[in-house]
Amino acid sequence: VNDDLLKRVTVVLVRARNPNNIGAVARAMHDFGFSDLRVVNEYSVSLETAKSAVDASQVIAGARVFGSVAEAVADCTLVAGTTAVGERALEHPLHALVEAAMLLKAECASEGGRVALLFGSEKTGLSNEELSHCSFLLTIPMHEHEEARHPSMNLGQAAAVCLYELVRREGVHLGTGVRELAKSEDAERVAQLLGEVLDETGYRRKYAHATTEEMRRLVVRMGLSAADVPVWMGILRQMLWKIRGRGTAD
Amino acid sequence: VNDDLLKRVTVVLVRARNPNNIGAVARAMHDFGFSDLRVVNEYSVSLETAKSAVDASQVIAGARVFGSVAEAVADCTLVAGTTAVGERALEHPLHALVEAAMLLKAECASEGGRVALLFGSEKTGLSNEELSHCSFLLTIPMHEHEEARHPSMNLGQAAAVCLYELVRREGVHLGTGVRELAKSEDAERVAQLLGEVLDETGYRRKYAHATTEEMRRLVVRMGLSAADVPVWMGILRQMLWKIRGRGTAD
Repeated sequence: VNDDLLKRVTVVLVRARNPNNIGAVARAMHDFGFSDLRVVNEYSVSLETAKSAVDASQVIAGARVFGSVAEAVADCTLVAGTTAVGERALEHPLHALVEAAMLLKAECASEGGRVALLFGSEKTGLSNEELSHCSFLLTIPMHEHEEARHPSMNLGQAAAVCLYELVRREGVHLGTGVRELAKSEDAERVAQLLGEVLDETGYRRKYAHATTEEMRRLVVRMGLSAADVPVWMGILRQMLWKIRGRGTAD
Repeated sequence: VNDDLLKRVTVVLVRARNPNNIGAVARAMHDFGFSDLRVVNEYSVSLETAKSAVDASQVIAGARVFGSVAEAVADCTLVAGTTAVGERALEHPLHALVEAAMLLKAECASEGGRVALLFGSEKTGLSNEELSHCSFLLTIPMHEHEEARHPSMNLGQAAAVCLYELVRREGVHLGTGVRELAKSEDAERVAQLLGEVLDETGYRRKYAHATTEEMRRLVVRMGLSAADVPVWMGILRQMLWKIRGRGTAD
């Protein structure tokens, strides 16, 4: 098995309620050799309960709690949000699991790459704010039944299937990625600065839809490389300086 | 999706104890479009309990109980038993899931073919007697941890992974959300406008390397989608309007 792959995949559970589900995700990670589990929860009760379960694995013992998705994915260069198709208006690129896994594996093989796989709450999935941190969406293709209710998988099973897809073809050698992607926290800095510039220009007063989430999505969709972050920061600072009419650019 | 495949796969649970696991297997079958579930149990308590669960699907409602593996697989032409590697002396051909799925799918595609996928009890797997009804064994490759305890997956997760492998390349319909990339001429318009804005801010006088080509590369690296072109054009026009201090944005 490719060691880089196993070490560079982070699973993030956002607002998971059922301790059994958290345990099941941890077990699937253990089964397939992954270890980095992160939990974003208002209440840490679920994780604590899961940790106290009889067969709690090393994975769950080492799970870390974060206060927000932004913090949980700060060091990740590519963030994939899992979703059931039709769950919401799709403002992100959407890939079926097979294709998504190729993108994730390629990123893991590239210098400095770290990928996050986000799973939302059992009932509501990922919110729009949470999705705005994602580079793309990933869906497990399911059968469309006539009852028309959007299908959604059990959390533990969905995680097992996604992780299986990542490791199913062992020893597949992927060429090293050409470009190193920016960490989420750096993309966030660019999005914040863009927001400031747009505030100054009046763009956001003019366009009600230009919310913080929308601006973040716009930047995340750029797939910023690490090398381009200082370039865009420089450009945006220069714009801000000019618009504000001050004498120092930074 | 290949209808024959969905109709010709039978899942057989042998001595499954936990009703939640039976329910989870039924749910995975429903998710991926399979429907024929058979249960071999000395006691029918587990299945009855699973059937009374709140979100019991049509799959579990239609599950049939058999008194032996022989009866349960009587009409099947190919029987695959799932096993954790090293679980027992392997007197059967063993295939990793990827290869096993190819054999099963080929059988489903052939005249009169019907395949069975056998899962044993949570604790002991399939007995030698039960395995003797199998054409071959199937294993989901897992990570070998140093603790050396033979890994085994949760029943519901193992079933989800096996069924996923059977359908993963079939009928992936993801019309919506697949993003259409911008035409080069549109990316060029964005790059030109960015160049104008940067001229106005003094950025290009300041940074000699900010040539037209460099700005174009910066924009091309964004991998602009067609839908984002008007958004970025609007943003850049607003910046230009503000910087020039004029009253019209376009």
